[in-house]
Amino acid sequence: MVDTEQAATVDVVAQLVAALGDRVDVSDAARDAARADKSGHAAPGRPLAVIHAASVADVQATLRIAHATGTPVVTRGAGTGLAGGANAGAGEIALSVRGMDRILEVRADDAIAVVEPGILNAELNRQLAPHGLWWAPDPASREIASVGGNIATGAGGLLCAKYGVVRDAVLGVDLVLADGRLLRLGHRTVKGVTGLDLTSLVIGSEGTLGVIVGATLKLRRLVPGDVHTIAATFPDVDAAARACSAVTAAGLQPSIMELLDAASLAAIHDLLDLPAPTPGAAQLTMQTDGPTAAAEAAAITEVLAATGGAVSLSADPEEGERLLRIRRSMHPAMERLGTTLIEDVSVPRSALAAMFAEISRIERDYDLVIPTVAHAGDGNLHPNFVFEGTEVPDHVWRAADELFQAALRLGGTLTGEHGIGVLKRRWLADELGEDQWEIQRQITRVFDPTGILNPGKVFVS
Amino acid sequence: MVDTEQAATVDVVAQLVAALGDRVDVSDAARDAARADKSGHAAPGRPLAVIHAASVADVQATLRIAHATGTPVVTRGAGTGLAGGANAGAGEIALSVRGMDRILEVRADDAIAVVEPGILNAELNRQLAPHGLWWAPDPASREIASVGGNIATGAGGLLCAKYGVVRDAVLGVDLVLADGRLLRLGHRTVKGVTGLDLTSLVIGSEGTLGVIVGATLKLRRLVPGDVHTIAATFPDVDAAARACSAVTAAGLQPSIMELLDAASLAAIHDLLDLPAPTPGAAQLTMQTDGPTAAAEAAAITEVLAATGGAVSLSADPEEGERLLRIRRSMHPAMERLGTTLIEDVSVPRSALAAMFAEISRIERDYDLVIPTVAHAGDGNLHPNFVFEGTEVPDHVWRAADELFQAALRLGGTLTGEHGIGVLKRRWLADELGEDQWEIQRQITRVFDPTGILNPGKVFVS
Repeated sequence: MVDTEQAATVDVVAQLVAALGDRVDVSDAARDAARADKSGHAAPGRPLAVIHAASVADVQATLRIAHATGTPVVTRGAGTGLAGGANAGAGEIALSVRGMDRILEVRADDAIAVVEPGILNAELNRQLAPHGLWWAPDPASREIASVGGNIATGAGGLLCAKYGVVRDAVLGVDLVLADGRLLRLGHRTVKGVTGLDLTSLVIGSEGTLGVIVGATLKLRRLVPGDVHTIAATFPDVDAAARACSAVTAAGLQPSIMELLDAASLAAIHDLLDLPAPTPGAAQLTMQTDGPTAAAEAAAITEVLAATGGAVSLSADPEEGERLLRIRRSMHPAMERLGTTLIEDVSVPRSALAAMFAEISRIERDYDLVIPTVAHAGDGNLHPNFVFEGTEVPDHVWRAADELFQAALRLGGTLTGEHGIGVLKRRWLADELGEDQWEIQRQITRVFDPTGILNPGKVFVS
Repeated sequence: MVDTEQAATVDVVAQLVAALGDRVDVSDAARDAARADKSGHAAPGRPLAVIHAASVADVQATLRIAHATGTPVVTRGAGTGLAGGANAGAGEIALSVRGMDRILEVRADDAIAVVEPGILNAELNRQLAPHGLWWAPDPASREIASVGGNIATGAGGLLCAKYGVVRDAVLGVDLVLADGRLLRLGHRTVKGVTGLDLTSLVIGSEGTLGVIVGATLKLRRLVPGDVHTIAATFPDVDAAARACSAVTAAGLQPSIMELLDAASLAAIHDLLDLPAPTPGAAQLTMQTDGPTAAAEAAAITEVLAATGGAVSLSADPEEGERLLRIRRSMHPAMERLGTTLIEDVSVPRSALAAMFAEISRIERDYDLVIPTVAHAGDGNLHPNFVFEGTEVPDHVWRAADELFQAALRLGGTLTGEHGIGVLKRRWLADELGEDQWEIQRQITRVFDPTGILNPGKVFVS
């Protein structure tokens, strides 16, 4: 049996090499790197090979061989995922589209761009800026994350409450199916309702429906004027969360509204060699932009002061960047503490304080500290479980389970922007219900009848 | 055979009456009304019965009987569709959800509303206004069209370029499947990427995946300040279309940007007893809103004047309404001319003038006048084919075929906001390609394995 398997493996790699030449990488270093993303989790074993696709034709050739030989394919972009969705293991082909990173077309008059999947989010926006345009999705990982990965995970970011999520910013996707056929989904127009919306179906499908080899992006005009930045300190996280809800309820729309709890703030101050913050204090950072930035910033300052915050306001872009740098240092600060499981629950904005209360309860019940940062403007929280070693300990999983159940009770969802991957697949049916889970599973089979696309991700067999 | 069929029919109606009592309507008037929508097309024959569902349980009971007996079900809202998608014919059950018209929940703090499908769009917005909120999709039929129908067709409207389409404004959908099971799709949160995005898949699915019995809508805060209205006359439609592209390319974002060609304008002036317009002249109507309304209106006025328009600008809301009334009189003006086939192609905004040139060519080639109105801000055109009688003549279909092919050549789509229904199903594969058509068809079978949901609509068997 083992001999037959080994022979088959050799045959798959030989076929890939015959078709793709030096774009097939069987080095230990490449195969090891393809086992993991930024979730702290790695697949068991190494993939057979890493394919560095340079074209749609390369992707199609890979899929045709995979299909003919029944070999699983794990598509990878920049490998910055946080749910293990792109981790490739034993017996699998790791198909990297990172090298397909061209911008094929920018149309300022139509406010669209056509891109390959491997381009990094921040690089795309640097190239769009001279056209007076930008693509709104802005995950915290934008400097290192690919646009294709953003689409495959349905990535979010800091600006979503005001400027929308990936689903709002993609008009079409080119998709290579499991058998190598190429589909062009969606359209280049603002409106378009011809048939079922398969573009939206592919967004957030985490490599289970096909390989994204191109995308038509809906762009925005650059927002004119300077941003205004507001920082506010509150005695505790409950007060800070209630202040966020008060800002939203007042009809104010900051572009950014971030909340750092006390444990997060302490770790970041330590990392950045800043004076230790007041124990227990939580911090809000907000920005306003556009033609009403100054007026909105003033109104937000009033609301925050009225809800007990110590507020500072700056119209200086450099000072704004300095304040946001504290927020952006969250991940490195956590990495210094140990291995991190970053969670991603999302709740209705009105339930933000209630969700923080649940996190406090879980900290007490499980004797854990769970540093938490929130995209407070859209109700998306990232509680960080920190532990020693490479395997998530059982009691952390039990605490995470309580976290998910609490989010669902509050009308929320397991994952706001990171995806299910391998780390949350066992909770998927809890949120969807068995009937919907089964329908979703069957839809993946329409695209991939033999189940070679990212098996074991999202859906537990 | 006929006797057996008749017996089966009697049995289905008897089962429906036993389960639903007087909510089963077998009157000739009701069954006749259910044959047609506003497309000018009617189904052959009458449906078996019209079910006036008052609850989710009614919908589930209907579907269970339909499923058990293999009887087709055509879901209807307010019956204002323009593609024949809700027309119910011989042997079918017409399931009306128009009576399910309650608003179940409004959360100003979360900017969401949970509604039943039968509520009319304009009525919803009247009830949301005291909360300082609105739902952005605004089809021209908003006073008579239901929210459920808006979702089922992926309806658009006048405000889409600035405020988005239905897909951008629905967070979740409750769906009764072909066998009567209830699924709750989507979420109540700004972000949410748990599993496949089935909410988006249902938007625009025209009754082929299930019956929409509830929706969680993403709302906006009412836009403060007065609107400014700009009207401009151009010597011909080409100049008017180029002026629209110039406004968009200048980065200006009117909330409304409508174009009426000469034939449309003449018919409307006739209807409203206004002086006849200058022969050949086309008219643009634009509105700006929000805090920068005045400045944007001034900038638009400059662009329009520079491109050769005779421009008038008003900050008076009543004058604005008067100008928009001309645009809103398009449908009644067409109805006076004869039976109308309203088309709905959408092209990239930069291709607007090119699409009008194609329409002129088709008018010449087929010796037709095709009055056309365009949502110029988003590239969506409604060419009107007017004819005598109830059946679309062959030469009109041939002209429509040329129209569709021209839109596709320009990077556009068959339908921007009306849907495929029965009227455009024969062109669906032209746009999707055979592979994608087949995958879409198979996805409908996942939701509806025996094919009882709106058979013959969208997909030609």
